[in-house]
Amino acid sequence: MAEDRIPSRAEDFNEWYNQLVLKSELADYAPVRGCMVVRPYGWALWENIQQALDRRFKATGHVNAGFPMFIPASFLEKEKAHVEGFAPEFAVVTHGGGEELPEPLVVRPTSETLIGHMYAKWIQSYRDLPVLINLWNSAVRWEKRTKLFLRTTEFFWQEGHTAHATADEGEAEARQMLDVYADFAENEAAIPVIRGVKSESEKFAGALRSYTIEAMMGDRRALQSGTSHNLGQNFARAFDIQYLATDNSLQHCWTTSWGLSTRFIGAIVMVHGDDTGLILPPRLAPHQVVIVPIYRKDEERAQVLAEAERLAAELGAYRVRVDKRDGLTPGYKFNDWEMRGVPLRIELGPRDIAQGTVLLARRDRPGKEGKTAVPRAEAPTAVGEMLKEIHTALYDRALRFREAHTAEPASYAEFLDAVQQGFALAWWCEQEDCETAIKEETRATSRCIPFEQSGGSGSCIRDGRPAGRKGLFGRAY
Amino acid sequence: MAEDRIPSRAEDFNEWYNQLVLKSELADYAPVRGCMVVRPYGWALWENIQQALDRRFKATGHVNAGFPMFIPASFLEKEKAHVEGFAPEFAVVTHGGGEELPEPLVVRPTSETLIGHMYAKWIQSYRDLPVLINLWNSAVRWEKRTKLFLRTTEFFWQEGHTAHATADEGEAEARQMLDVYADFAENEAAIPVIRGVKSESEKFAGALRSYTIEAMMGDRRALQSGTSHNLGQNFARAFDIQYLATDNSLQHCWTTSWGLSTRFIGAIVMVHGDDTGLILPPRLAPHQVVIVPIYRKDEERAQVLAEAERLAAELGAYRVRVDKRDGLTPGYKFNDWEMRGVPLRIELGPRDIAQGTVLLARRDRPGKEGKTAVPRAEAPTAVGEMLKEIHTALYDRALRFREAHTAEPASYAEFLDAVQQGFALAWWCEQEDCETAIKEETRATSRCIPFEQSGGSGSCIRDGRPAGRKGLFGRAY
Repeated sequence: MAEDRIPSRAEDFNEWYNQLVLKSELADYAPVRGCMVVRPYGWALWENIQQALDRRFKATGHVNAGFPMFIPASFLEKEKAHVEGFAPEFAVVTHGGGEELPEPLVVRPTSETLIGHMYAKWIQSYRDLPVLINLWNSAVRWEKRTKLFLRTTEFFWQEGHTAHATADEGEAEARQMLDVYADFAENEAAIPVIRGVKSESEKFAGALRSYTIEAMMGDRRALQSGTSHNLGQNFARAFDIQYLATDNSLQHCWTTSWGLSTRFIGAIVMVHGDDTGLILPPRLAPHQVVIVPIYRKDEERAQVLAEAERLAAELGAYRVRVDKRDGLTPGYKFNDWEMRGVPLRIELGPRDIAQGTVLLARRDRPGKEGKTAVPRAEAPTAVGEMLKEIHTALYDRALRFREAHTAEPASYAEFLDAVQQGFALAWWCEQEDCETAIKEETRATSRCIPFEQSGGSGSCIRDGRPAGRKGLFGRAY
Repeated sequence: MAEDRIPSRAEDFNEWYNQLVLKSELADYAPVRGCMVVRPYGWALWENIQQALDRRFKATGHVNAGFPMFIPASFLEKEKAHVEGFAPEFAVVTHGGGEELPEPLVVRPTSETLIGHMYAKWIQSYRDLPVLINLWNSAVRWEKRTKLFLRTTEFFWQEGHTAHATADEGEAEARQMLDVYADFAENEAAIPVIRGVKSESEKFAGALRSYTIEAMMGDRRALQSGTSHNLGQNFARAFDIQYLATDNSLQHCWTTSWGLSTRFIGAIVMVHGDDTGLILPPRLAPHQVVIVPIYRKDEERAQVLAEAERLAAELGAYRVRVDKRDGLTPGYKFNDWEMRGVPLRIELGPRDIAQGTVLLARRDRPGKEGKTAVPRAEAPTAVGEMLKEIHTALYDRALRFREAHTAEPASYAEFLDAVQQGFALAWWCEQEDCETAIKEETRATSRCIPFEQSGGSGSCIRDGRPAGRKGLFGRAY
């Protein structure tokens, strides 16, 4: 497989992505239009993402639960903005057990409505609050144009749903979970993100405010990589989620929801990958280290393999794979694991064994520059340090790339050019008509109003209306 | 909540079960008929089950993947016995994105057909074998009569799917995974199980042979607790899963599938629970230990809570919860955690602190008999030992109960009585007409032909035909 050349990113970024995802065996097309199979290599990556997030969710007091996939169609209609946003994407079950159902069931596009129904039953008093539940499952949205990981009819994700006694607590929760996502993206996936609030037209259907982390892909387009919503009392009113307050008055709860999906795997591919293939961030990579045994003669084989296994055992603190496949040359194996993005390769042959050294090759630095011979006894320490360095190098490179392709245009003419080249940060009136016009004129959208603002005020980059904040614009996936 | 008395098991086992599952907050009814919400306490138990199984799957070389929930209806029709078995239970998606679909999609009742389609694509040569994949997901079967955990329209489970080069390897895999389930049931859940092969009429739709682990519930009925299927070449032929053998001939693969579901939580409730509530097996319990701080005056409160937290930290090797809830008496908390089945309770008050002791109370031995005061310094060791003892005691009790209610009837008259009282083990002709007659006459079914046989041969307990093996019969869930 390693022989089939995929297009370079410069030739065709889109095809580079599609072919790489297939060839590295992250995922495959399912027989149902728009659905994907996440193959074992991709799923191992997703399991590492899940663990990194789940640890953070539990550390902030959340618990997991299992909710059903079927939602009565009437539930989804209870929150007006919500149904308008999602109805065009419903997958509908009309028959069960050989009979037509009395009421059609929608396969969850997201679970706010079912959560609302159950929370109304479970929550009675202020003593029951806050409720901090997360679900790991899959959701279905009937998409017209699909792309592996980035936009699939069914996608795997987590959806957090919380209920609180006050507006402040709800807002603090929504912001906290955005911070959790940003921390995960930067410290686990080595992807720098911009935190901000979504514009009115880009917010979640039914939310008061939506927060987002936005990342720049290798083709300079934006990917919304995780979102957190302050739902205000919208769903609490629609589903009667009420609690008896300490003053004996009956109050509606304040709720939030937040989600991150397998789409994030697409971000990892597009942020770090190069023309040779994937480059997986060390903290999430299924194999952090691959040991390739090198031998020419059969009598060397047993010795080298035994030594490779011993070395793997010494590196027990890391996820190590020994490539024992017969009938493949070391060169083939190097290419194969480079294409699959293993952060660190160890080459081990009779000469290395005789010299008491191992050769470490970094995936993020191709060629001689990335190769270091270290004494065998120092391998565990060297591997640990090098994995950390790779993480930092990937993060820094992605950040420099984003900064190099983020402009602060002084005029709308400059803005028109900037959003074709990358991100544009500009004073913005935040009005819907302006956003629509920009979208029509540039195919770029408002990604967010970043939390980090330089202060002051200005006039809108497009229409000159007063602007209190700068908006981040770009073409997005 | 702890005040609402639930019926005793003797009064009404069925209602005891239903009310206990709701009251202990393991699960709740979803608004869609036959569906359940697994609440955080039940999900934490499921996560521990998942981890215990997943560890065993990975240790035996399996990897996880993610498959879509939608299967084209035409796929399910490719294996004749399979579609006949499952078609009556299909949930069918007919509309997506506001339009009627060209082909209806079935929400997976089980994934053999989709697996078959993908394996046919992925497997080319003997080098690609074996393929050892497991999926953690949920499946949907439209059931007429449902019961929380035991039989729900949607249930959570894992489904393993493997492909092999030879018949022997397929058979060895199916048997290995049954052993994994039995090991899990006995060593994690403290549930003794009987391993055996299913009769022809009870086997999985499309299988060559089905293996099962069967457990006896507290009402002496049987529960099929996990199954492993040798699918022979049935699905490989239906889906063209072929490989190029070393002799360059094209061969069909031999496949297996095996599954264990949230139904197992029902087994845990019904095997170990008593009239006071749940008794969770220590290795799977979400909280292995609950510390109840005891104080009368406000000035005692701070000291006792601080000491409870210190004790919890010392017990860091276990899953410990400190019940810090205010406004509830210790007695209320004792009852509450007993009902929720926490294996070990630690009572900690000013007197215990002054004496340098802690009081341990075992959930499986109510009253004074189960209480032991141990020196504070020995608490970590004592807790570890006691959790092990509780595991063994639960297992032994369940085994004695099953043995006391398993008869070896000498005549069909005795058999008729035995299957109403528990299990009956008897020489059996294994013929379908005989099985049907027994079912009609007793409402009991053949649970399995146990692997463990005393040897020899006899004549069928019902019709006197020659019998080479004994069958296990009982009324089942």
